[in-house]
Amino acid sequence: MKGENSKRPIGVFDSGVGGLTVVREIKKTLPEEDIVYLGDTARVPYGTKSEKTIKKFAVEDVMFLLKYRVKLIVIACNTVSSVALNFLKETFPEIPIFGVVDPGVKEALRVTKSGNIGVIGTIATIKSGAHEKALLNAKEDLKVYTKPCPLFVPLAEEGITQGKIANDVISLYLHDLKGKIDALILGCTHYPLLKKAIKGFMGSDVTLVDPAVEIAKTVRSFLEKNNLLNNTGGELSIHLTDVPPHYKELIERFLGQKVNRIFQVELTGCEGGIKL
Amino acid sequence: MKGENSKRPIGVFDSGVGGLTVVREIKKTLPEEDIVYLGDTARVPYGTKSEKTIKKFAVEDVMFLLKYRVKLIVIACNTVSSVALNFLKETFPEIPIFGVVDPGVKEALRVTKSGNIGVIGTIATIKSGAHEKALLNAKEDLKVYTKPCPLFVPLAEEGITQGKIANDVISLYLHDLKGKIDALILGCTHYPLLKKAIKGFMGSDVTLVDPAVEIAKTVRSFLEKNNLLNNTGGELSIHLTDVPPHYKELIERFLGQKVNRIFQVELTGCEGGIKL
Repeated sequence: MKGENSKRPIGVFDSGVGGLTVVREIKKTLPEEDIVYLGDTARVPYGTKSEKTIKKFAVEDVMFLLKYRVKLIVIACNTVSSVALNFLKETFPEIPIFGVVDPGVKEALRVTKSGNIGVIGTIATIKSGAHEKALLNAKEDLKVYTKPCPLFVPLAEEGITQGKIANDVISLYLHDLKGKIDALILGCTHYPLLKKAIKGFMGSDVTLVDPAVEIAKTVRSFLEKNNLLNNTGGELSIHLTDVPPHYKELIERFLGQKVNRIFQVELTGCEGGIKL
Repeated sequence: MKGENSKRPIGVFDSGVGGLTVVREIKKTLPEEDIVYLGDTARVPYGTKSEKTIKKFAVEDVMFLLKYRVKLIVIACNTVSSVALNFLKETFPEIPIFGVVDPGVKEALRVTKSGNIGVIGTIATIKSGAHEKALLNAKEDLKVYTKPCPLFVPLAEEGITQGKIANDVISLYLHDLKGKIDALILGCTHYPLLKKAIKGFMGSDVTLVDPAVEIAKTVRSFLEKNNLLNNTGGELSIHLTDVPPHYKELIERFLGQKVNRIFQVELTGCEGGIKL
């Protein structure tokens, strides 16, 4: 029975295609796992929307993945991880669900020397205070600086990841954090695309923490402990709720490899009709 | 019977709250009309999404407004007007539907002296070629320059409408158009917020055309011709599919007045289930 369960795929979802950076890391760490990815590209972004709506969308995302008999679910989206992780765990107790907040927090705690940590993310992520609470829960004498950076996502999607405009926007958002922290959690899947420019602005003393790298380790460790590792798979299927013409390039940029097939799917309608 | 129909409200919809700039102009021109506004803020933006998805969302938007027995519908969204106007007219032949493309085009034709006209908008709007086709249909010896400006919406929503970053982004998108045109259609409801900075970059010889102003004139003229003018109303009700915490300020910025009540509504579920 355990052997059979191990062959079930890992489910990963995100508000859009940014979560493919998480898939990329999981594939590196666990190349023989099958992965079912869902990106809710018809309703992206989530990070500017209300908690109620984010929870509703997240429930529909999880319900979609459950149809694929996934053995666990990774929330690649920092916004959903921040706002809805506990709610999803309560709503779907039958399936292990992992968010990207805790792995990022754990790594930031590991690398900080000064105990001064920065967190950047979407408006909803920062407003939730999820990273801050998790950090202070782990160690109460930390100093945590947070800042929403709403323009980073459109910049990354436009491919403006360096140069004058990128640098000015980075300076606008991060000048308050500069010189105060030695670890910075990149609390949005898009932000690693701006890593070089952010590092350039913040200085070489600041370690940038990419939760995508950390969540992959968390997943491996969970699968190992529960004897659920797959060593006969390795397939990735990508399901999106919308596929605009310019998406192929964006998908390949985030995933770091070529993609030949994408499934366009519908989430809403009667099947997702849980009223919150 | 005509008298009764005149009392029915005008329906206006948009992907988000940007369409309230159109409501503002309609209220100026027609202060005694009742207006029902729908902003699909749960799924905003539309401009980065596929034609198929934009059409599907637009059908759900129109179906929502029809429940209010509106006497006509204004598509405040340039993306929907560009991509889906004819499709909506065919799908709902019983109701007059107006988009913002034709009024903007008409005004640009009126103000241009050189016959060189620029059009800026979302990726989907520019890709549709709607403005270009309408302009060249009206006068085939025009020269039309188009450019998608995806960062203008997030800039406007962040309140970055002047200063270094705004100017650099404007320069990035518009330097190819500078010196070539004498009329520029602002083909997205958010762009008028950047009017001053765009004008500053393009120079005083270039007339900026705001379709919001023009569509209000079109609606008035239609109501007059069809004896449908209301002179006993003046109420505005705002319906949004999501109401994030920071929205009140944004709504008031676009509408230009205080707002006390917003209705949060659901579009999807079985009722919007038209498969395209």
